[in-house]
Amino acid sequence: MTTYSLLILPGDGIGPEVMAEVRKVIGWFETNRGLSFDVSEDLVGGAAYDKHGKPLSDETMARAQSVDAVLLGAVGGPKYDNLDFSVKPERGLLRLRKEMDLFANLRPAQCFDALADFSSLKRDVVAGLDILIVRELTSGVYFGEPRGIHSDDNNPQNEGGRVGINTQRYTSGEIRRVARAAFELARKRGNRVCSMEKANVMESGILWREEVQWVHDNEYADVELSHMYADNGAMQLVRNPRQFDVIVTDNLFGDLLSDAAAMLTGSLGMLPSASLGAPMANGRPKAMYEPVHGSAPDIAGQGKANPIACILSFAMALRYSYDLGAEADLLERAVEKVLADGVRTADLMGPQGGKPVSTAEMGDHIVKAL
Amino acid sequence: MTTYSLLILPGDGIGPEVMAEVRKVIGWFETNRGLSFDVSEDLVGGAAYDKHGKPLSDETMARAQSVDAVLLGAVGGPKYDNLDFSVKPERGLLRLRKEMDLFANLRPAQCFDALADFSSLKRDVVAGLDILIVRELTSGVYFGEPRGIHSDDNNPQNEGGRVGINTQRYTSGEIRRVARAAFELARKRGNRVCSMEKANVMESGILWREEVQWVHDNEYADVELSHMYADNGAMQLVRNPRQFDVIVTDNLFGDLLSDAAAMLTGSLGMLPSASLGAPMANGRPKAMYEPVHGSAPDIAGQGKANPIACILSFAMALRYSYDLGAEADLLERAVEKVLADGVRTADLMGPQGGKPVSTAEMGDHIVKAL
Ligand SMILES: CC(C)[C@H](C(=O)O)[C@@H](O)C(=O)O
Ligand SMILES: CC(C)[C@H](C(=O)O)[C@@H](O)C(=O)O
Repeated sequence: MTTYSLLILPGDGIGPEVMAEVRKVIGWFETNRGLSFDVSEDLVGGAAYDKHGKPLSDETMARAQSVDAVLLGAVGGPKYDNLDFSVKPERGLLRLRKEMDLFANLRPAQCFDALADFSSLKRDVVAGLDILIVRELTSGVYFGEPRGIHSDDNNPQNEGGRVGINTQRYTSGEIRRVARAAFELARKRGNRVCSMEKANVMESGILWREEVQWVHDNEYADVELSHMYADNGAMQLVRNPRQFDVIVTDNLFGDLLSDAAAMLTGSLGMLPSASLGAPMANGRPKAMYEPVHGSAPDIAGQGKANPIACILSFAMALRYSYDLGAEADLLERAVEKVLADGVRTADLMGPQGGKPVSTAEMGDHIVKAL
Repeated sequence: MTTYSLLILPGDGIGPEVMAEVRKVIGWFETNRGLSFDVSEDLVGGAAYDKHGKPLSDETMARAQSVDAVLLGAVGGPKYDNLDFSVKPERGLLRLRKEMDLFANLRPAQCFDALADFSSLKRDVVAGLDILIVRELTSGVYFGEPRGIHSDDNNPQNEGGRVGINTQRYTSGEIRRVARAAFELARKRGNRVCSMEKANVMESGILWREEVQWVHDNEYADVELSHMYADNGAMQLVRNPRQFDVIVTDNLFGDLLSDAAAMLTGSLGMLPSASLGAPMANGRPKAMYEPVHGSAPDIAGQGKANPIACILSFAMALRYSYDLGAEADLLERAVEKVLADGVRTADLMGPQGGKPVSTAEMGDHIVKAL
């Protein structure tokens, strides 16, 4: 029997709470579907800093490299805001992305019909919304050198005497591989890709545009490709998000645009994400799965968090890492059923009120629906 | 009698059409209020490229430096999309910003009550919205060196063999001066500033946060200051934009966030902007005014464009550059009256229909309302 290995990194804030509900779901699949998961758990982010003095230990990094899939909760919190940059919780997450080479970050922004009224946008603008943002995740200004804060004392014009530098750097190869991922995904969806950059002001944006076009013309001419400046992209996401199918963009633009897109749906607590790398020996990609929401320190430990985003992230792992598409479908349908039954965590309560269920109750409902 | 100098740069697309309506407004003030404007006109963007082979001639640049205020229409269009980077229409605009040292770009996002239903957001989320984004405009990744596209042929890992580079670079002095502008403006409004960066992943963002905090603690402790990561900022603008008063952010984040904020209002054709530099001999800042909308090549030359954003940009010039606050008020009230009377250009037509007025008719209505 195949054993599926999974490394769980709950992280900070609400991470551990939502992950406990995923454990219940895993338990259900083991008991009722005869699947065997080899689940290990470890620390990342502030939790790892508290124990090891750094946000990801080398042992944890090695473990992440050896499993079929990593499931991460969230990192960061006010307690760690004043740590030195090199040991901030975020560095743990960024190290995982970089060393596992997870270059394609898939962020679906889907508006669940039962929840369309939670959006700050009008129902007719977002109902049925289903876009996929493919964000480059291992390069760009997140990782480019040189970087740092330097003294600039010999510059009398510079009151304050310091200078802060980061470098946006992309190679054509880095652009091509994430473009391919976007085109592949588009073929299984609406067959349209919109690429976003600032080619009107940045040379790295010109290279981005040219390389995406090259991949299109040489390998994916059947997919419809358009280009848009990222500022216009931000506007168009607000104005009429349903005009898009797949959006491909760089690390930093992807960070802002995918968050804006996620918020359009009105149900951030529902959105999973997958970060995929190159295929491993078994043919499946290196992979890490995470909810789109953050660590939400303001509600941590209170049983208020919505575990659905993390549970749906596990569903993505079932599909992309374990090739268990039927099980993924089953889990997604269970979530839909629970929502259709009107079960709601606090973040999903409308103005009309009602009694929200706790994190654990939501998990129980989903297991029951399975 | 004082003569107020103004350089008009209509630029491309709908720029010339909307500027013609500003001319009518200027004429009205000369005839009926005894003001004297010394108006000159010149080329920028694609229009300048067509004549001079570059998007801003040295003569035009010198002229811009010598006037009280510059009023710019818009630059760019598909005709110029394949020009070399160094002569793209945008370079003309960027040269003006850089050489006039217009470091503080004021982008109000105001939701006009008569137009709240045009927003893609729910009325109760945006009605009464009045936020001001102060975007740094002369530094950051727009201007940082090194930059460019290079060959990377000796890197076998790099399929495609090229690398694109831009540099995000901020000095503490550059951050402090735009922070001061934001705090000054906040004092005249809601007294709250929210500063946005990515200090969790970029050292330049750490410097940004520290310097804004320094200016606050040492000079503006009476103003409420908060900090937010820019991705969360993009989310919060969608979720609940009215939580903000003044937002201060860097050049690139400001580009995306101000466009998203503008779109929230549902009436992009209404929004003016001001770009201000250091005070000149007369005590007034160097200044350029522009509508937030772009050159809209798809509707150029058809008399469909809304001239209000450009007319309100001139109202900002009256206020900030000529110290004619009463005249600015008068002009703004005339615009409000015309809107209240139900006069609408095509961009402001709701689903219920009606007959839109042309660009010229809108200008005439506003002059009549004056
Ligand atoms: C936590 C942070 C480092 C991260 C990022 O900036 O990429 C987050 O915002 C995200 O989008 O996953
Ligand atoms: C036209 C372009 C160069 C410009 C920018 O990127 O700054 C525009 O988008 C703006 O926001 O004024």
